[in-house]
Amino acid sequence: MNDDAVEKTGEKAAGGMHLSRRGMLLGAVAGGFGAAIAPSHAEAGSSSKASTGSDDEIDLDRSIPFYGEGVAQAGIHTPPQRHILYMTFDLTTTDQRALQVLLARWSAAIAQLMKGEPIGQVEPERQGAVGFDTGEALGLDPASLSVTVGLGPRIFTEALGLADKRPPLMRELKQLPSDAFRPELTGGDLSLQACCDDQQVAYHAVRDLARIAKQTGVAQTRWTVMGFGRASAGKGQTTPRNLFGFKDGTRNIVDDEDFARHVFIADGPKWQHQGSYQVVRKIAMHIENWDTDRVSDQNAVFGRHKVSGAPLSGTYEFETPDFAARDANGDLLIPANAHIHLAAHENNGGIKILRRSYNYTDGINAVGQLDAGLLFISYQKDPAQFETLQERLGASDGMNEYISHIGSAIFFVPPAPREGSYIGEALFSAQT
Amino acid sequence: MNDDAVEKTGEKAAGGMHLSRRGMLLGAVAGGFGAAIAPSHAEAGSSSKASTGSDDEIDLDRSIPFYGEGVAQAGIHTPPQRHILYMTFDLTTTDQRALQVLLARWSAAIAQLMKGEPIGQVEPERQGAVGFDTGEALGLDPASLSVTVGLGPRIFTEALGLADKRPPLMRELKQLPSDAFRPELTGGDLSLQACCDDQQVAYHAVRDLARIAKQTGVAQTRWTVMGFGRASAGKGQTTPRNLFGFKDGTRNIVDDEDFARHVFIADGPKWQHQGSYQVVRKIAMHIENWDTDRVSDQNAVFGRHKVSGAPLSGTYEFETPDFAARDANGDLLIPANAHIHLAAHENNGGIKILRRSYNYTDGINAVGQLDAGLLFISYQKDPAQFETLQERLGASDGMNEYISHIGSAIFFVPPAPREGSYIGEALFSAQT
Repeated sequence: MNDDAVEKTGEKAAGGMHLSRRGMLLGAVAGGFGAAIAPSHAEAGSSSKASTGSDDEIDLDRSIPFYGEGVAQAGIHTPPQRHILYMTFDLTTTDQRALQVLLARWSAAIAQLMKGEPIGQVEPERQGAVGFDTGEALGLDPASLSVTVGLGPRIFTEALGLADKRPPLMRELKQLPSDAFRPELTGGDLSLQACCDDQQVAYHAVRDLARIAKQTGVAQTRWTVMGFGRASAGKGQTTPRNLFGFKDGTRNIVDDEDFARHVFIADGPKWQHQGSYQVVRKIAMHIENWDTDRVSDQNAVFGRHKVSGAPLSGTYEFETPDFAARDANGDLLIPANAHIHLAAHENNGGIKILRRSYNYTDGINAVGQLDAGLLFISYQKDPAQFETLQERLGASDGMNEYISHIGSAIFFVPPAPREGSYIGEALFSAQT
Repeated sequence: MNDDAVEKTGEKAAGGMHLSRRGMLLGAVAGGFGAAIAPSHAEAGSSSKASTGSDDEIDLDRSIPFYGEGVAQAGIHTPPQRHILYMTFDLTTTDQRALQVLLARWSAAIAQLMKGEPIGQVEPERQGAVGFDTGEALGLDPASLSVTVGLGPRIFTEALGLADKRPPLMRELKQLPSDAFRPELTGGDLSLQACCDDQQVAYHAVRDLARIAKQTGVAQTRWTVMGFGRASAGKGQTTPRNLFGFKDGTRNIVDDEDFARHVFIADGPKWQHQGSYQVVRKIAMHIENWDTDRVSDQNAVFGRHKVSGAPLSGTYEFETPDFAARDANGDLLIPANAHIHLAAHENNGGIKILRRSYNYTDGINAVGQLDAGLLFISYQKDPAQFETLQERLGASDGMNEYISHIGSAIFFVPPAPREGSYIGEALFSAQT
């Protein structure tokens, strides 16, 4: 009863430790159990005030730079913001010049949007004119908006005269055992990933960019997911929870060294350096079924304790899991088909991917159940990194009973443009 | 060109005034053009730190009291938070006692949730137990969560033995000229309105309450809308924008006197005092069509300037519209079929309703257009207040070309329970 009361206030750590929630989190960071501490790097953004570093406040005033030299686009290295609007587009033209114009216009608009500015007049002086900007973000702060542009496999084809610019590792993902795709939730020739601490600002950004795509006759909306309450952590962030109630992102990539090793491309054609491959999955989670399962079973599925996030081999969230540890009966503490066992770099030849996932809901499904899941986005320098891990998970992950991969796409994300240039400019120049 | 550059940074007020955005907003408040200033009243919530009063920061630490004596449920008078999850439920029983148990369990759970606490153990001590709380809000702040419970028309029927407890003005809404309902987006016997500054906290609340409804065999989910970037303002808030890009809520009810006159019931059966009728509409907005319209036409549809929010008869947002003012040609400055003309209390015998609306998006529709709109929620002491205004708007509002009322429901929202009681307790006692 006493334990019950304590846990009800969220103040009970696993393993019998009694610490306040805040004490526990700060303790974990200060103790350095593998947690990243410093929240500041080039992409962490500028603000008129210093960040409190607290999860109790959201500072909407912050803006993130769009342009850069020899760096990745924002939205990969950037610590995940609280909301996402992800959308893919189909090209409606094979005119290379038209695509070039769209990428140039998108880049100019994104630079404005990330500063918290409209992309043009909302209420033009000239009588009878339509607005250049739809206006719903007027007066709102930038709220750390980042918009990341991806180029799909069909961009690099003969039809567009761009076959010779194909990134060396770009291809459709191979068929995996977890695939249960709905065609209307797959693919796309262009992608926009708008992440922001204000959902209205994210929606406005994608809406106005989609409007430009249609106005120029270059691309048409294909599929979209709106996500919230990010599930994966970034540098300096406490680990958020997915809709299974578990922490997601404890072992995510946070160190620059790992970004260089696993995420950003540094070889091949020069214009692709600091680019990355974006893999997106819409993963439906059968949360009502999940909720009827014993928590001890749930823990075994993840390989972690639900409340503390600690691996089943240990006590603290950021402890390194001991995949060989066994209990008194000789059974593995972290089952061999536990999610963290299958996905761990220790068990996959050192492979890591950067995850940038968000929770989503589609309301209520046809059979009256809550329709929700995970918008999984990963970044890697080679799509094979994702495939290797997902092939293993799809074959034997204990979680498969509770999830369906219903959407999927892959994009190449070129590096950030330098000021005065635009995303993908190198595609259209003779030099590469 | 100069004007263009100025407006691009959002710093141009209508009517030739040049003020910075922040200066303009502060000026409007300080100048007292009808704007509410004081952000504090009983329901404004408690926080470990003082509120900055700034729209640049969201203080997630704040919690709102659930219990109260002789006051309304939270979520009506409470200044609108940034997110909403609205859901209705169908009763799956005619057992009055079962309904009573559900309302009691919901009340206890909501009281916990609004404090930022789980509704029970996430990871029970007892091996083999399922969790009482699904866990995804563990470690998150209350973020000003309010959960408001509504009772639908079919609660007060012979089937449940509650016909004699029917609130005097409770009935199904009459057919209105704007109705274009999809049956699956209408009605319900119970409603939950969860408003919160953290979308994940709102989702968790409704998910766990829906779980209790199913577990007890009392109610089944019916329809739901998730909304963001509130469109209507509350006391002490700057006016947000809807997805037509216009300010929404400039003339909303903010003064206690108006709440008493128009919103909260003060006569009839005593247990209903401080109750209110909740009308909900899911209004699809054809934003892609809207975006092709001239802004001067859009202004005429609303009767306001898009950027400043000022009535077409004036210069400042909070100016009282002059519905008789004419231009040099003798034409009304605010057209007779403008939205604010038709909806104004001056033109409707003094009738006002409290609006608490949010923007929503359903992604992309079947014809490839952005699918978005407004979750309109109003509170009034008599459903006829809504009907009177909506009948007028539905018949001649210039906005009708761009909107469809696709969902609708009505609920009676009983007052807040005192501590130790629960929502609707008086329904089940002999005394009323």
